[in-house]
Amino acid sequence: MTNSDEVIGRINQHFEKDYQLRHAVRLAEWDQSLHVKAASLAARTQSVATLNALRRDNLVELMESCDLPAALRCAATRDQSCLREVDRYLRCHLTVPAELQDRKTRATSRAESLWADCRSRNDWESYAPALSAVVEVIRLEAQHRAEATGLELYDSLLDIHEPGLRIAQLKPAFEELKVWAIDILANSKPASTVAAQRRLLTIDDKEKLFLNISCVFGFDLTRGRIDFGEHPFCAGVPEDTRLILKKDSSILDGLLEVIHETGHACYEQNLPTSPRGHPINLPRSVGVHESQSLFFENMIGRHPAFLNYLSRTLSDKHQFPISADELNFYYNQTRLGLIRIEADEISYILHIILRFELELKLINGEIEVSDLPECWNILSVDYLGLSPGNDFRLGCMQDIHWSLGLFGYFPCYVLGQVYAAHLFHQFTATHQDYSSDFCSGNIRPAFDWLKEHIWSRGSCDEVLSVFMSSEKALDTKFLRRLLENRYKT
Amino acid sequence: MTNSDEVIGRINQHFEKDYQLRHAVRLAEWDQSLHVKAASLAARTQSVATLNALRRDNLVELMESCDLPAALRCAATRDQSCLREVDRYLRCHLTVPAELQDRKTRATSRAESLWADCRSRNDWESYAPALSAVVEVIRLEAQHRAEATGLELYDSLLDIHEPGLRIAQLKPAFEELKVWAIDILANSKPASTVAAQRRLLTIDDKEKLFLNISCVFGFDLTRGRIDFGEHPFCAGVPEDTRLILKKDSSILDGLLEVIHETGHACYEQNLPTSPRGHPINLPRSVGVHESQSLFFENMIGRHPAFLNYLSRTLSDKHQFPISADELNFYYNQTRLGLIRIEADEISYILHIILRFELELKLINGEIEVSDLPECWNILSVDYLGLSPGNDFRLGCMQDIHWSLGLFGYFPCYVLGQVYAAHLFHQFTATHQDYSSDFCSGNIRPAFDWLKEHIWSRGSCDEVLSVFMSSEKALDTKFLRRLLENRYKT
Repeated sequence: MTNSDEVIGRINQHFEKDYQLRHAVRLAEWDQSLHVKAASLAARTQSVATLNALRRDNLVELMESCDLPAALRCAATRDQSCLREVDRYLRCHLTVPAELQDRKTRATSRAESLWADCRSRNDWESYAPALSAVVEVIRLEAQHRAEATGLELYDSLLDIHEPGLRIAQLKPAFEELKVWAIDILANSKPASTVAAQRRLLTIDDKEKLFLNISCVFGFDLTRGRIDFGEHPFCAGVPEDTRLILKKDSSILDGLLEVIHETGHACYEQNLPTSPRGHPINLPRSVGVHESQSLFFENMIGRHPAFLNYLSRTLSDKHQFPISADELNFYYNQTRLGLIRIEADEISYILHIILRFELELKLINGEIEVSDLPECWNILSVDYLGLSPGNDFRLGCMQDIHWSLGLFGYFPCYVLGQVYAAHLFHQFTATHQDYSSDFCSGNIRPAFDWLKEHIWSRGSCDEVLSVFMSSEKALDTKFLRRLLENRYKT
Repeated sequence: MTNSDEVIGRINQHFEKDYQLRHAVRLAEWDQSLHVKAASLAARTQSVATLNALRRDNLVELMESCDLPAALRCAATRDQSCLREVDRYLRCHLTVPAELQDRKTRATSRAESLWADCRSRNDWESYAPALSAVVEVIRLEAQHRAEATGLELYDSLLDIHEPGLRIAQLKPAFEELKVWAIDILANSKPASTVAAQRRLLTIDDKEKLFLNISCVFGFDLTRGRIDFGEHPFCAGVPEDTRLILKKDSSILDGLLEVIHETGHACYEQNLPTSPRGHPINLPRSVGVHESQSLFFENMIGRHPAFLNYLSRTLSDKHQFPISADELNFYYNQTRLGLIRIEADEISYILHIILRFELELKLINGEIEVSDLPECWNILSVDYLGLSPGNDFRLGCMQDIHWSLGLFGYFPCYVLGQVYAAHLFHQFTATHQDYSSDFCSGNIRPAFDWLKEHIWSRGSCDEVLSVFMSSEKALDTKFLRRLLENRYKT
């Protein structure tokens, strides 16, 4: 056995353990979003913190016990990319010192619980100091990461969520999208409603409908489950994926939410599993994850051909009569507003760019948390023509991300749109009869194509080549072309 | 700071960590009983095994890093019993070598899954080899424990669940109870039904009723929750207690089940919490745990005075009209049968003694697993006058305990009865108007009394003094007196 085989064996063992601990953490997170009472929360938080500390110990032990550079030098080609991914994963998770990590956990826990509470009372003043404490920690984190990697401050955070991507690629693409999106919105009709939107189902019938649609979109209930909670998200691990759907969605908005979250779930459930927990078998990036949910939501869910099938299903099987025209009209219109998660595909881009520009300045120290409300309102008027004024629930308190310490994360939502459009372009190039397939409800070929090119590839570098002609390019033309067809009046 | 303070500090840290890991394990167990799909089970089992291995590592580290005997010598009196309990806990959890523990985990996992499957097909032949493998491991475990403690083989297992109790105390008490119980049963009327038993509620109304009764009996929903599953049990940790009630119980049988499980839950929720996870703050023993559920079920739940209140509640608030006489008749009659969990209080004693006698012989090597069906049937006829014949679901495959490796556990169910009767004797001696209290639904004084004498004491030695005149005596007279009043015709 060569030294590199031995190292690879040790690596696999440590990541198997990492997977098993992550499993427990993810279960706790799932449970927390559905079941935990306020008085039980402190104990749960400490339990998860202990599990995460043990995950860190396990990774430190791996890093200290194996000579990765030496293994890389003598590894067979097929092992090279696995080892590179291990190296990246270890550096990403261990660069921040344990004490700073603890401080981050405390700061974000506090900001998270204050956010929920203060937001309900529109109380920015009480929340702002907690967010400042988070920003302070994240700036320190960025310094550590920047020193370790030689990257710019913000790039070092972006690299956690979207490995390899840099502001230098993001900025020009976002500038282009910004000008373009403002223009499209200015020329689009105002949103209006459809009669069917006011139709209701019983809670049971609605939940049954959402569950069925999730299964139509490939959610595998033999190794996962669906629950209904406050916020939609995909939790668990590939071998036991837990989808949470929003319990009080309207039927029409909820349908796209279900389809979106099912995209995340299918990616997780179809990742490669051997060696289990290995970084090479994790999702490629946050942007790629989002591209899967957006492929499901926007490329299939909003597609006029698919809406024909959806209209028949809703009318014939779910006591919710609605025409394909109504669905098409409702799902393919711009809906300008202040709330990101209710936005149409085009306004959404502007919501994200606004947050990106603000968080970039926050990390670089160009603005402070106390400047946020004013800066937010100015950009909001510039990009959306609307201002939240003093209603912080519609402004800088609307998202939980910054409370959780997620900086460099928001851009991945737009990356997801860009990637999804690339993928759809490639899929339709090789499946030219996709439209009649969608019309008859046959969306299997799209899943098979995604499974082959994305899901089964895990974190291989080749995944990126599907989206980009060269690794450096972030080309928005497919997205723009698609959205122009859909929304330009 | 003295050496003993330092040791105590280190001990508290390690048990805080143990609590946090146990929290994750208990959550996984709770989830597994309600939510896990068959295809997700293997990953879950591995995750829990890893958490338990980490708990062991943590305890080994504690044992190796502190000189307990030295600390005991110089500790203040108030710390002595804490340190003794730590010593016992460490010896109990670390005596079995890690390799044997792994083998036990594998053997019991296999037997557990085969048990459920084979039982549904009444297939003893396929299940028996898996149970033999468990017995083989447990015999080895008993050898290790016996060598480490100087106890007899079976005593070494009994000591895990009921610290300090020995066969020498158990056997004479069980012999006495056996003769007595057979006599009472021979002279009791055959069971009969009451008209109200056939009355139904909707699933929603039934679940609402059970939840309300659980709250009446003190379950604290602000830091716990109630779900409905296949088997009733109490999971979670004191800071987040998860009660699972059986979803397909009949109303009348279900009511006592709810009351029983709530007894377990109230004990957990009212244990002392500081220092968190310390062995001194764990439940005193399995027998004491069971005594709390049986105090709830048998001392309050079946009490004629309380049944007056229950009858009014069911009739007035829950659309389930039933008279106190009907309740009294149904709950206070013997119900001879082959299924333990459906037995009355007296037959129950015989069910347990049967299992105790068989498992004692299994551990001592006097019989083998292949002898079980015949031995079971013979004892069953002797004690209950009934035989399961070749229906193993009614005989030696009816309980899951042995599949899980639980030997020396069954006796604790009768200990629970003995202890509960002691407790009730003491409670009523100081609360002579308890009967009119129960009649008006005021059961608070009983909880307050249990809280003071049992719940808030954790694993202090003094808990046992409540049950026993001397620590060595296992006196069945209060139990016999109580049951004779209730069941003797």
